[in-house]
Amino acid sequence: MQTVALKLVTIIAEAVLEERLIREMKQLGAKGYTIGEVIGQGSRGIRASDWEGKNIRLEVLVSNEVADQILQHIADTYFAHYAVIIYAQDVQVIRSEKYQ
Amino acid sequence: MQTVALKLVTIIAEAVLEERLIREMKQLGAKGYTIGEVIGQGSRGIRASDWEGKNIRLEVLVSNEVADQILQHIADTYFAHYAVIIYAQDVQVIRSEKYQ
Amino acid sequence: MQTVALKLVTIIAEAVLEERLIREMKQLGAKGYTIGEVIGQGSRGIRASDWEGKNIRLEVLVSNEVADQILQHIADTYFAHYAVIIYAQDVQVIRSEKYQ
Repeated sequence: MQTVALKLVTIIAEAVLEERLIREMKQLGAKGYTIGEVIGQGSRGIRASDWEGKNIRLEVLVSNEVADQILQHIADTYFAHYAVIIYAQDVQVIRSEKYQ
Repeated sequence: MQTVALKLVTIIAEAVLEERLIREMKQLGAKGYTIGEVIGQGSRGIRASDWEGKNIRLEVLVSNEVADQILQHIADTYFAHYAVIIYAQDVQVIRSEKYQ
Repeated sequence: MQTVALKLVTIIAEAVLEERLIREMKQLGAKGYTIGEVIGQGSRGIRASDWEGKNIRLEVLVSNEVADQILQHIADTYFAHYAVIIYAQDVQVIRSEKYQ
């Protein structure tokens, strides 16, 4: 079984950001995305009270380079004003043309 | 805390494949599964336009060997005709009889 | 891109345990959580027939130490009587005050 390593980047954000985030993921190089509805509560120090209720969980499978750019973009663009969570994980996918 | 390494295999596919995929996961050795509803968009080069809308996100916790068999089976069976995504991740679970 | 390693701990459990699990996660040190609805089927050897239907998928991002405590707590508290699944994964998050 030949696999290749990619990054799974997960973003948890207010549902109102959905379209904007999808557009930005594509601009940064993601070929596709998956979205699920979640609820949550949390804080990044700022505006803790705002992050409670309907959120989206947006996932993209991307290269290490694109993952870095997405992490940086989300931090730069949203961390100051939105309760956005983002993390990256190593995943193994089947080697194919699909994710190139 | 003694943990053991397993693989979390995630399959994102059209909802119409749900029953068939569950049956195949069990046949390949998965003892259980978790399914969530997601939406998504993407492409593997083929039929990009078909993969948009209601999907399922099917997860199984399995051994490395079963994970390899699932990856291979999904690639062989679905990649030519369905917009199925599959990836595997390393996870730590508590050592117990549960996943043997 | 400076990232820091955390653990993503995922718990899959009967929906009736939601409030109790959230309270316990906070007591054990989680600063936030994300919950999605899932369905599933499985077994840990005991009460296999009970784990089928509506479940929650509860996720927390925590330090290695808190992850260990959560794994141990869930095993000690629930494994004997509930069909709870729990696993931990390594994730990379952006270095910030957020998860400290």
